[in-house]
Amino acid sequence: MSNEEFSREALESVLKRRFFFAPSFEIYGGVSGLYDYGPPGCALQANIIDAWRKHFVLEEDMLEVDCTMLTPHEVLKTSGHVDKFADWMCRDLKTGEIFRADHLVEEVIEARLKGDKEARGIAQEEPEEEDEQKKKRKKKVKEIKAIKLDDEVVQEYETILAKIDGYSGPELGALMKQYNIGNPATGEALEPPIEFNLMFETAIGPSGQLKGYLRPETAQGQFLNFNKLLDFNNERMPFASASIGKSFRNEISPRSGLLRVREFLMAEIEHFVDPENKAHANFDAIKDLKISLLPKEVQQAGKTDISEITIGEAVAKKIIDNETLGYFIGRIYLFLVKIGVDPKKLRFRQHMSNEMAHYAQDCWDAELQTSYGWIECVGCADRSAYDLSVHAAKTKEKLAVREALKEPQTVELYECEIEKKKFGPLFRKDAPKVEEWLNTRTQCDLEELAKELEQKCKITAKIANTAAAETEIPDSLIKIEKKKKTVHVREYTPNVIEPSFGIGRVIYAIFEHSFWTRPEDSARAVLSFPPLVAPTKVLVVPLMNNKELQDATKTVKATLRRAQIPFKVDDSGASIGKRYARNDELGTPFGITVDYDTIQDGSVTLRDRDSTSQKRGSLADVVAAVEAITYRGASWDEGTKKLVPFESKNED
Amino acid sequence: MSNEEFSREALESVLKRRFFFAPSFEIYGGVSGLYDYGPPGCALQANIIDAWRKHFVLEEDMLEVDCTMLTPHEVLKTSGHVDKFADWMCRDLKTGEIFRADHLVEEVIEARLKGDKEARGIAQEEPEEEDEQKKKRKKKVKEIKAIKLDDEVVQEYETILAKIDGYSGPELGALMKQYNIGNPATGEALEPPIEFNLMFETAIGPSGQLKGYLRPETAQGQFLNFNKLLDFNNERMPFASASIGKSFRNEISPRSGLLRVREFLMAEIEHFVDPENKAHANFDAIKDLKISLLPKEVQQAGKTDISEITIGEAVAKKIIDNETLGYFIGRIYLFLVKIGVDPKKLRFRQHMSNEMAHYAQDCWDAELQTSYGWIECVGCADRSAYDLSVHAAKTKEKLAVREALKEPQTVELYECEIEKKKFGPLFRKDAPKVEEWLNTRTQCDLEELAKELEQKCKITAKIANTAAAETEIPDSLIKIEKKKKTVHVREYTPNVIEPSFGIGRVIYAIFEHSFWTRPEDSARAVLSFPPLVAPTKVLVVPLMNNKELQDATKTVKATLRRAQIPFKVDDSGASIGKRYARNDELGTPFGITVDYDTIQDGSVTLRDRDSTSQKRGSLADVVAAVEAITYRGASWDEGTKKLVPFESKNED
Repeated sequence: MSNEEFSREALESVLKRRFFFAPSFEIYGGVSGLYDYGPPGCALQANIIDAWRKHFVLEEDMLEVDCTMLTPHEVLKTSGHVDKFADWMCRDLKTGEIFRADHLVEEVIEARLKGDKEARGIAQEEPEEEDEQKKKRKKKVKEIKAIKLDDEVVQEYETILAKIDGYSGPELGALMKQYNIGNPATGEALEPPIEFNLMFETAIGPSGQLKGYLRPETAQGQFLNFNKLLDFNNERMPFASASIGKSFRNEISPRSGLLRVREFLMAEIEHFVDPENKAHANFDAIKDLKISLLPKEVQQAGKTDISEITIGEAVAKKIIDNETLGYFIGRIYLFLVKIGVDPKKLRFRQHMSNEMAHYAQDCWDAELQTSYGWIECVGCADRSAYDLSVHAAKTKEKLAVREALKEPQTVELYECEIEKKKFGPLFRKDAPKVEEWLNTRTQCDLEELAKELEQKCKITAKIANTAAAETEIPDSLIKIEKKKKTVHVREYTPNVIEPSFGIGRVIYAIFEHSFWTRPEDSARAVLSFPPLVAPTKVLVVPLMNNKELQDATKTVKATLRRAQIPFKVDDSGASIGKRYARNDELGTPFGITVDYDTIQDGSVTLRDRDSTSQKRGSLADVVAAVEAITYRGASWDEGTKKLVPFESKNED
Repeated sequence: MSNEEFSREALESVLKRRFFFAPSFEIYGGVSGLYDYGPPGCALQANIIDAWRKHFVLEEDMLEVDCTMLTPHEVLKTSGHVDKFADWMCRDLKTGEIFRADHLVEEVIEARLKGDKEARGIAQEEPEEEDEQKKKRKKKVKEIKAIKLDDEVVQEYETILAKIDGYSGPELGALMKQYNIGNPATGEALEPPIEFNLMFETAIGPSGQLKGYLRPETAQGQFLNFNKLLDFNNERMPFASASIGKSFRNEISPRSGLLRVREFLMAEIEHFVDPENKAHANFDAIKDLKISLLPKEVQQAGKTDISEITIGEAVAKKIIDNETLGYFIGRIYLFLVKIGVDPKKLRFRQHMSNEMAHYAQDCWDAELQTSYGWIECVGCADRSAYDLSVHAAKTKEKLAVREALKEPQTVELYECEIEKKKFGPLFRKDAPKVEEWLNTRTQCDLEELAKELEQKCKITAKIANTAAAETEIPDSLIKIEKKKKTVHVREYTPNVIEPSFGIGRVIYAIFEHSFWTRPEDSARAVLSFPPLVAPTKVLVVPLMNNKELQDATKTVKATLRRAQIPFKVDDSGASIGKRYARNDELGTPFGITVDYDTIQDGSVTLRDRDSTSQKRGSLADVVAAVEAITYRGASWDEGTKKLVPFESKNED
């Protein structure tokens, strides 16, 4: 492939010209953070989703669900999103501008470091951005001033940048004060950072009373359906659900094209597992994979050194918390490489302790290297029992697993004793409901109820379908105490391992990783997508557009259609070379040329996009080669064994 | 199949038990009009989408795009949705209840007709609804009173019901007055119908200034990208774009389960065609299809008589407006039947003149018969040039086709003559922009500008990137007149034919059309989905769950996985019959039984869901049979030619 330096400008020009994607509502001036996928982008996305479904849902027998995006307030209040799904923003009261605090600090410090290098006369790579792109990003720091900094300050700045993802709002505010970071245009100080909730809000129904949001992730729907999924899985553990769909994030100031958008496609897995046994049955299949890890200790020391290590070793050394988490990291690696990510530009970065939610056990991001830096594209977190627990507590619906024990065990358990005789007179027709409610409390519930009973000498509870809004149960009617007991069933709330893919970000990284230009002509760009995910698999090119070749082309089309291979025909008047060059930009891996020999003997030429080498054979053999390479992972040499090399004239 | 009457209660019980779908957020009490698809529903949906993509996008070479759901106000203002995407609702000021006006009129009149029949002693079918369902629908009319009506009134009521989809709000208000229709619970009169906009509103960005909506259809994104799509298609006409994605509709009071929901999956095609030539190149392929039509004249006469007619004849007789519309009606028919719609329960109903938007040329709905009546599931409209025209007018961006004429033509065209010398002094540095703006006006623009110039002696225009908000051009500087001219290029705004699928409604109809119970045991329900769309293709059933059979089962699993055939294994202790019965309810078309002979000779048994007949053969032949029947449309007999009949013991 080409030795040329990667040029983002050249890539973007191809992506735009070939309508891989474009700003949404562009003829209305566009809305930042919203993009449409054109035909090749849309097909690439559909193929990646199809590959994801096969790699994860089918191969691992996951339970796919499709839940709504509209989500009522109460659900996201319980999950923590209403209170915590926010970024820190700073307003400039004078100009009305709004800045995202962490991005502002990062950009200003980067600019100062750059200015320092300039002042020290150190050569720097020029950032490659075309003007339009620059304007769109609304870069906060307009000009770099060549001012030398103290060595100490340089060191401090570099440490801040290494830890930039881990600061809280008040910490960012303190940094802004300490280092005098204000509105870059005016130098004026800004208001301290305040939280801005990133969910889009709306009202459900005609009354306007039911507040809802567009989901910020697909996970919640999976948690809420846990009992139905467990039942569907015949009560067997562990198992995983999966979901593919759009989620939403009302970014403060979107930038970086497809990398930071307000509406995006996610593919998420929730793997439910016994908290006491996170071994994985197929761990052996991936344990010898060598991957690049950036553990949290390294980052907390302000460094970014990578360890190259097998997953087996990382789990054995407890760098990765458990086998199941390690297993999914391995499966994510295999998937990303299969769909076109360059393994040299893929690392797994562990979340630092202050970056992780309090309940998370461990969390790793698959980061892909792009011209924008290392970008988080897939998260892989062990979320413990948090999600199921909070929804169960809020709804009083048990979200747990009951498992028969092989041998009975003696345990101390809370028990609730009921004075049945007194229930009738006090609760009347609600008595059976109150009794049932008490009998269906979990151990956690009972522990809390025991405390309440001790402190207040009564329990106050909301019990569904009873006459009163709240039911009071005095301690003269019940006793809740710990008792030794022989149990035959173990009940537990599963932990959740959550691999979560941002499909749009993965797609953008694949654009960068697949892009190159032919050494002999830098204007001839190629997108080397793996055939499996390429938008179109075959370009059919009749040598000329005349009646004879049209008939031969029809046969080729019918054969490809029968084989269900997506193809396009280019029977325009352009030269063969030009037609192929156009489709190299679309990433079409194969070309089939129909010429006068085709009419004679039914043979056609097959062209390989990356090498431009050509082979010839019968139409059936050529189509079989395309099928083998595209869908069964054969190499070019393996797939085209039956074909003979073909010397073409110059492509142009 | 079974002769039993269809029971909605039995179907719903299966759909719920097997988690095809469930109310979203059910543990939080649910939100009406929102449903989640569980694993079998989700797989069915994914398979239907895959079939749709192959049937339309791939076979017809359409340009698929994926546009955002978030849509700014201005776009939907232009499209007409802000002003017109509304239903009529009536409030009861005393109780605060809100009714959808047309549904209220329909239900009250239906109830009165039923009461009339009761009074006349005419036997009626009992509506089949389980209690829970009844509660959820919140049926407005709680009890039917047996009151005889005048024969005349019965006639009037029946006419109203036949035309119920065509009434405007004021007309519904008049009916409510005339027939004394108020709140069914209290009998009190309601407020006159007012419009309620059905779009979900939200704010984009942190300032809260940019108002947006969730799209009510996927069409607008396709229209806005018209120029890019035309360019992508190498400027060739006609062509179609397509889009699959969720849309939203804030229903006043959702009912009827999956048929009326607030968030739904759509698959829409926009076929752009020359308004002067709506012939279709492949019309012959579908012209002999015989379909059921319900033309508008029949409905306007208050009738519902169906014509059985070929599409060719319907187009020739101008019942269907043009070939392209007829072509898509045919393709819709073929698709629906392929994925499991019963052709006897499929009709195409033409919109009545008062039902159709003023710009629409013709519109047909594919309606599917269910226990809720005939339900609109696919629309197929000729929307003329409306959408492209309004967006072009609003944005001043040309959305049109330029076509080289074979022979030059003499035409009368508006031309704009400019007094260049006077432009500089008046507009200064904006002069070139004003000139360019004038030179890029369409013929329609110029016609309007000519009128404006004549009436006001000046033009007032908003010109992008000029100093003033509005620019005034006095008639001393320009002349706009019609002139004879020889043209070599024809410019026109394409018309749009729009087939639009509500996937959830189609899925629900397929549930009803596929459901039956075995005559020998009405508790054994079957969902006879076509193998192509069935959620799982094969159930693998080892006779016993022991080590020997486990190994044989592994081979079966590996073979199916290699062939990419979705399967499930049931190695539970339940009887073979029970395991198959469970999967009949899931619609799994094939069963593969692994027994002790499998260990000896590698043979397995293949079971057919619908007939329960079994055949035996080598694993390779059985898998080939499954592939041929599922993906290549072979019948059971064709597909299993290599297998030999197998007499099983009784399934239970």
